[in-house]
Amino acid sequence: MIVVLKNGAEKQKIEELKKNLNEKGLEIHESKGKDVTLWGLVGDTSRITPEELLANDIVESAQRVKAPYKQASRSFHPEDTVIDVKGNKIGDGKICSIMAGPCSVETEEQIIEVAKAVKASGARFLRGGAFKPRTSPYSFQGLGAEGLELLKIARKETGLPIVTELMAINQIPLFEDVDIIQIGARNMQNFDLLKEVGKLKNPILLKRGLSATVKEFLMSAEYIMASGNENVILCERGIRTFDNYTRNCLDLSIVPYLKKETHLPVIIDPSHACGIRWMVPTLAKAAVAVGADGLIIEVHNNPEKALCDGEQSLTPAQFDDLMKVLGKYAAVEGRTV
Amino acid sequence: MIVVLKNGAEKQKIEELKKNLNEKGLEIHESKGKDVTLWGLVGDTSRITPEELLANDIVESAQRVKAPYKQASRSFHPEDTVIDVKGNKIGDGKICSIMAGPCSVETEEQIIEVAKAVKASGARFLRGGAFKPRTSPYSFQGLGAEGLELLKIARKETGLPIVTELMAINQIPLFEDVDIIQIGARNMQNFDLLKEVGKLKNPILLKRGLSATVKEFLMSAEYIMASGNENVILCERGIRTFDNYTRNCLDLSIVPYLKKETHLPVIIDPSHACGIRWMVPTLAKAAVAVGADGLIIEVHNNPEKALCDGEQSLTPAQFDDLMKVLGKYAAVEGRTV
Amino acid sequence: MIVVLKNGAEKQKIEELKKNLNEKGLEIHESKGKDVTLWGLVGDTSRITPEELLANDIVESAQRVKAPYKQASRSFHPEDTVIDVKGNKIGDGKICSIMAGPCSVETEEQIIEVAKAVKASGARFLRGGAFKPRTSPYSFQGLGAEGLELLKIARKETGLPIVTELMAINQIPLFEDVDIIQIGARNMQNFDLLKEVGKLKNPILLKRGLSATVKEFLMSAEYIMASGNENVILCERGIRTFDNYTRNCLDLSIVPYLKKETHLPVIIDPSHACGIRWMVPTLAKAAVAVGADGLIIEVHNNPEKALCDGEQSLTPAQFDDLMKVLGKYAAVEGRTV
Amino acid sequence: MIVVLKNGAEKQKIEELKKNLNEKGLEIHESKGKDVTLWGLVGDTSRITPEELLANDIVESAQRVKAPYKQASRSFHPEDTVIDVKGNKIGDGKICSIMAGPCSVETEEQIIEVAKAVKASGARFLRGGAFKPRTSPYSFQGLGAEGLELLKIARKETGLPIVTELMAINQIPLFEDVDIIQIGARNMQNFDLLKEVGKLKNPILLKRGLSATVKEFLMSAEYIMASGNENVILCERGIRTFDNYTRNCLDLSIVPYLKKETHLPVIIDPSHACGIRWMVPTLAKAAVAVGADGLIIEVHNNPEKALCDGEQSLTPAQFDDLMKVLGKYAAVEGRTV
Repeated sequence: MIVVLKNGAEKQKIEELKKNLNEKGLEIHESKGKDVTLWGLVGDTSRITPEELLANDIVESAQRVKAPYKQASRSFHPEDTVIDVKGNKIGDGKICSIMAGPCSVETEEQIIEVAKAVKASGARFLRGGAFKPRTSPYSFQGLGAEGLELLKIARKETGLPIVTELMAINQIPLFEDVDIIQIGARNMQNFDLLKEVGKLKNPILLKRGLSATVKEFLMSAEYIMASGNENVILCERGIRTFDNYTRNCLDLSIVPYLKKETHLPVIIDPSHACGIRWMVPTLAKAAVAVGADGLIIEVHNNPEKALCDGEQSLTPAQFDDLMKVLGKYAAVEGRTV
Repeated sequence: MIVVLKNGAEKQKIEELKKNLNEKGLEIHESKGKDVTLWGLVGDTSRITPEELLANDIVESAQRVKAPYKQASRSFHPEDTVIDVKGNKIGDGKICSIMAGPCSVETEEQIIEVAKAVKASGARFLRGGAFKPRTSPYSFQGLGAEGLELLKIARKETGLPIVTELMAINQIPLFEDVDIIQIGARNMQNFDLLKEVGKLKNPILLKRGLSATVKEFLMSAEYIMASGNENVILCERGIRTFDNYTRNCLDLSIVPYLKKETHLPVIIDPSHACGIRWMVPTLAKAAVAVGADGLIIEVHNNPEKALCDGEQSLTPAQFDDLMKVLGKYAAVEGRTV
Repeated sequence: MIVVLKNGAEKQKIEELKKNLNEKGLEIHESKGKDVTLWGLVGDTSRITPEELLANDIVESAQRVKAPYKQASRSFHPEDTVIDVKGNKIGDGKICSIMAGPCSVETEEQIIEVAKAVKASGARFLRGGAFKPRTSPYSFQGLGAEGLELLKIARKETGLPIVTELMAINQIPLFEDVDIIQIGARNMQNFDLLKEVGKLKNPILLKRGLSATVKEFLMSAEYIMASGNENVILCERGIRTFDNYTRNCLDLSIVPYLKKETHLPVIIDPSHACGIRWMVPTLAKAAVAVGADGLIIEVHNNPEKALCDGEQSLTPAQFDDLMKVLGKYAAVEGRTV
Repeated sequence: MIVVLKNGAEKQKIEELKKNLNEKGLEIHESKGKDVTLWGLVGDTSRITPEELLANDIVESAQRVKAPYKQASRSFHPEDTVIDVKGNKIGDGKICSIMAGPCSVETEEQIIEVAKAVKASGARFLRGGAFKPRTSPYSFQGLGAEGLELLKIARKETGLPIVTELMAINQIPLFEDVDIIQIGARNMQNFDLLKEVGKLKNPILLKRGLSATVKEFLMSAEYIMASGNENVILCERGIRTFDNYTRNCLDLSIVPYLKKETHLPVIIDPSHACGIRWMVPTLAKAAVAVGADGLIIEVHNNPEKALCDGEQSLTPAQFDDLMKVLGKYAAVEGRTV
């Protein structure tokens, strides 16, 4: 932590703050210039915040040098975390794991038909929403527990592990048998929920909030890990900017950045990012090119009649075409989908 | 809803979509230009979404004409909603209600001392956090249930009604006796939580998410109202932009906009918006000038030692000075604080 | 400047960088922790940039402690700059100077009629566009030189000094006699233009770019001042965010921040910020409440037929009403409009 | 254009507006619902704006259906524009043209050395700045005219056509012999400059402003084309968002979107987007994957001593490695670099 003191700060207040910091086990290295006094705080700074220091009137500014997260940090855990779900690995550097399926589970026929189709095309996981976070209380809210049962039937039919969203703590008992539990973008800073899923063993797919900084995103992963669950998969799904020609702006730079900053796997959701069916394949290719550990893609057998997000869903035929070309992109660097 | 069809859309698909919309009780008014065909959909469009229409390949664009919210809309409910908490009115146009207190409840002495001080200066409500949403799992998370008890003691001592944040559904039983329940910015789209507080009778102070559009903000209020609780107070607390010279950017234009668009009271939180003690008074004056129905301001008896957000807390003396000048600003248009 | 070195940086590279910095006259204060080495650079750091330092592979991060601007900084020039235009003072702390007039000068009758009206209501300056920056090449581009002549006629008729926008270097000779030259938001970083107006004596009203940080805004003022013209007036006119319920988001926090950070006068343009006629008065009141040194407001005698920005222009009658109430707000703190 | 009238609009005002629009050659198709009246305006709507209509108090909202640009629009000009610079084609769908070189031209040795190196690795164009837009007036501003001369020498030595930035109208005579003239992000809405380069024959590489919407970007291209120069190359170089872990956020979705919306070539600048050397190659691969017509990449023979942007420059060796892998990515879809 670097602290800049105000010009003309009172000696007594400086001494008090020094004492206070020393008591917290921090050593102070001082650099005195003509106009400016700097302190470098050395020691375990993860339990103090720049804001706390700023509450002192003699402090001009305070900034962290080291990341505020620990368990999520690559410097703390240098090797890649590889998550193994029934033999399907995410984060091993060799496979870009494709998760595919409809936005919402609608009927048994629908989910089984889509599951079979995406499996045939090479998807390794089946995604589908049972509990749906919708902006409007008047929109279809998902089938709930029944949707989870239908997903499990589709899993039984195809062998594909399932990925589905959990929205509230009281739904946790229903998710015991879910292969990967998704925490949605709007719940990325629902800290009570993060703490609870941190007590589970299921891998957690954590989506980045629409305007979450990378630091906040990793701090949310840290919440889960600090509660005991180290199986966190990070998912970029588009951020909010000043423009709206796509629903959100897919921030692909986050993939190389996260691969450097953390050991956790990183996947991309091109469907929610752009919200436009015809653009999904192009973004999916780019996601493979930047080295994503996986993709999560919406596929619906009848997008025009979908109860949710039909405008961004591929048909099974479009998905099949896409898988072929994604394989070629992955092969450029010796990877596979 | 306005629908623009793609050039050269197939007749059969057009007929299908027409039939589909007619079955939903919508009438179609068609305008045909040389290059463009427009439909004006007339009827109850609140149950369909532009996205649904876009899932049809023949649709170029689709846009709402009427707001997607109903109960929150002033066109649905023309008179101002006035919320009466033990005789303290919020939203009556005459009073700008001041809520004040520390970010976190820390000790009995602290909360009572602050409560007495802010009451003496003219605050009508005591704010204080018991459950705290913190970005880091390693930061102080609030006193929890014990903090609620201390708030109630301070209420008993001063008579000030209390405002405090609820973070999760399972905490609801503890909040029965809380005068105003706050839903924080990071939970603005925690839809399960919104539905549950919609079943309560306590007034809900709903904070705008850091990057929530006004439409999304009102849709979150709609969630609460649609579940049965019409006592919603909207609170602007700063939005996220490209700059960071203040913690967030206080968006004061939202006050006149919301007063036009909705009948719900609107209050301003200048403390969280800027995150800088010395700027709070200036923003508070502006909030009165734009016609806010209230302000929520952080006050701490010893900001430099505060466990949370000390950098933005006023001292009781600073708050007292501020109250005097706010009274003068309110008086310009015949109001009072 | 604070420099953080990478863990395990090679000694030889560290020595080279040290030498390099010493040669630039900078002293290095080193703080060595277990995991981190910090340098505080002491001396004149205005000629080096953090980016330059980051070009060295051994540097982890580099951050300024002192502002990169000098002449614009209050620490360099503690007293307020007061700009006196024919006896009308801007920035003296007592007057909030109102500038008013149409977006575009259209005809002699129009500009004279509006000028007389706004003068009668108490405006101290006449604004009006002759050269207009329009997003579309097919929109009305202003009357150009003829518009400037009409402004001068209106000035002669009313005695009001004129404020009008300069868009290109080759227009400068036409602006010799203009009382305040405006540089528009889209030209805020047209550095060649800034350098040229820095050679003039006319006060420059510099508008903040739509997504310019405060630092960039002040660096643009610094460009003008570094070329010799110290008469710079800063104007906030709304920034671009993720929402669009108003055209831009008026960032009122910038007023107290700039008053602290710089000695230059700060004015507000509520008309361009919101782009909605009925909201202008509310924002104007708030601008007075935050202590702006002036306001620039669009007034048109027939907004529905205006060639430009009619949707945000007040009628003379609306402006007259507004001036009365602004006077009351200014009076709260002993100021006047 | 779609116009929504306010509820209860006066008949007389409606008739006036109808007459007014009819006089402009527009036909009105009316859809009347219980609460809402819609007009579809049919005819040439490029000369009216939604804002103009909103200046009428009876208008609730007004939105374009067709794009406000014409010459830049693919519907106006369906075939791809291919720009041929001395036999090097940009936009032909087969080649992804690589432009490479230093941020700033510094010395004859430097520019020749870099030019030879990038040519050897397969670059088709030499980039280099002579006039530099720098945020600070105290930073190196480029060699100016001398820099242009050095670029021409390097062109002579290598045969590579040159790309360099023009900042002001009065520099145009110096640029006659420049192969591609760049207009920088900060000048994207310097409309006078756009009009002037619209009178030239040289291809114009137009960079997207840091917070320009796609619509604004295309309107700036339209300015150039409307003045007579149809050789416009669009360049995405990162946008400004709420986060800053990279300098800007590379918005790769714009490539497929622009390829659909316009016939102009689209290139990507990964160097300025991220501002971090080690991330450039990853983003460059993704840019090829989304189908960019070219890339512009910074390469410096001694990045640690570069006078500008050394932190984002590749060394010639790094660039050479990158070219090899980019070739493989291009080959996936039968293209070449």
